[in-house]
Amino acid sequence: MNFPEYVKIVEVGLRDGLQNEPIVISTESKLQIVKSLIESGITNIEVTSFSHPKLIPQLADAELLLDIIPWNEGVSYSALVPNMKGFERTLQTKLKEITVVVSASESHNRANINCSIAESLDRINEIFILARAKGISVRGEISVSFGCPFEGDVSLEHLMLIVGKLYEMGISEITLADTIGIASPKQVYETFCLIKKNLPGLISAAHFHDTNKMALANILSSMLAGVTVFDSAIGGLGGCPFAPGATGNIATENLVLMLDKMGIDTGIDIKQLIKCVFLLEKLVKKHIDLIPGLGKLE
Amino acid sequence: MNFPEYVKIVEVGLRDGLQNEPIVISTESKLQIVKSLIESGITNIEVTSFSHPKLIPQLADAELLLDIIPWNEGVSYSALVPNMKGFERTLQTKLKEITVVVSASESHNRANINCSIAESLDRINEIFILARAKGISVRGEISVSFGCPFEGDVSLEHLMLIVGKLYEMGISEITLADTIGIASPKQVYETFCLIKKNLPGLISAAHFHDTNKMALANILSSMLAGVTVFDSAIGGLGGCPFAPGATGNIATENLVLMLDKMGIDTGIDIKQLIKCVFLLEKLVKKHIDLIPGLGKLE
Repeated sequence: MNFPEYVKIVEVGLRDGLQNEPIVISTESKLQIVKSLIESGITNIEVTSFSHPKLIPQLADAELLLDIIPWNEGVSYSALVPNMKGFERTLQTKLKEITVVVSASESHNRANINCSIAESLDRINEIFILARAKGISVRGEISVSFGCPFEGDVSLEHLMLIVGKLYEMGISEITLADTIGIASPKQVYETFCLIKKNLPGLISAAHFHDTNKMALANILSSMLAGVTVFDSAIGGLGGCPFAPGATGNIATENLVLMLDKMGIDTGIDIKQLIKCVFLLEKLVKKHIDLIPGLGKLE
Repeated sequence: MNFPEYVKIVEVGLRDGLQNEPIVISTESKLQIVKSLIESGITNIEVTSFSHPKLIPQLADAELLLDIIPWNEGVSYSALVPNMKGFERTLQTKLKEITVVVSASESHNRANINCSIAESLDRINEIFILARAKGISVRGEISVSFGCPFEGDVSLEHLMLIVGKLYEMGISEITLADTIGIASPKQVYETFCLIKKNLPGLISAAHFHDTNKMALANILSSMLAGVTVFDSAIGGLGGCPFAPGATGNIATENLVLMLDKMGIDTGIDIKQLIKCVFLLEKLVKKHIDLIPGLGKLE
């Protein structure tokens, strides 16, 4: 069993997490969370989304937040960009990395982005060309890659077509998202192995929700298939406003505990990370259960 | 990644589960649970323990329960036997399979069995010889195989010494128990690979508690190391009365869901199993959270 020596964790709690919380927290509170994440050694943060402020009011302060976060501490910030309007907004900020998104199923793409997959891919291509010209790197994310809340199974063949289109555009890092947390370790392994075989050079990343408590097993099997980049959300926040049944992301602290136990480096200090969970708990006004293995580290 | 086609699940909820519940349920209620488990296709049930009734009053009805459960339905029943006194009690029953137990750490062995590891191994040897003469098969279980609540790390070398002693006696199936749920998938993989390499022919089984939500990941990595026998407890009941910090076993229904999704046969009907969870909930008077993937199957 070949495990990686280093895993890159992309913290998505501020985006995928906060967009699902009933309360809107202040920009100042978000800044506190960013600072706390940085203190724990996190270097990749998906910090917000340029969605329509009426659709996702929790993230309506995207520009403001990007203006006040610390930019000189070796941290890569990214933001989710659902459409051209969102991309244009990013150009007024210091962002150098964005995540574009398309779903693996037509129904979810319509619910999430309000257009067909083909239209999404065209828009992504336009955004990608403009972004490249501006020196902004682009991660591609495919929602409901392992199954859709409306359509059920997503065939591997169909998923590979979408991955292939993004790859052909020139997108060099693609995240497969298990948006509703229904993937199995076997499915995950087979999918990432096929990508590695067919699309050499592509950086594969994975984004798992812990709906069925299989997120860590899915991460394990992704690593065995060569994946070394994982999204996770501090406190296990998250879900998808446009995907019924979605629950929280894999908690960053649970993922780091497993990787620590396996001797896989993440650059993250887990004790400091637990302080960040407590800060989040206070700001989001929500109890977060620490797993016992973390409770002992407090 | 080579997964097994079939996995044998040993249901331990009636033993490892009930011994940790604050209430004592009636023998008649236990019979109902056994019948419901059988209806879902479970064929291996660790049904009770021959511990001292004062120490574990929840299981004081061992003989009575073994007398009334259905014996002609292709089900293998086993019971935990902590000492010679317990073994002598089993001889008055119809049992044809027992589980003997020793800990991987001196402190836990003393807390659990009240003697040293060497004394435990001597007693197990005596029991094994008598059991073999009576045609009773013996599974060996090693508690705190992956770490001890009192002593911390258990070295692989030390664990292998104990596994080796049981193997030399002639015990052909050995379960490594992660009693407090602190194992990591890497540790589990390396341990089972070493056993497979050094002790050919031995059947390895694994028993995981889900303390850190890593049980399914640990099961995945056990399977990759060739393990095909897993203990689990309906409803995720369990813990260890003599191990501070121990939480529930991996829930049988969660394990079966993962294996189903991976196309690995267990012979268990998950919808029927969910009915068993509801029955248990009623009898144990305790809310059991179904993971969303199971809720949909109701």
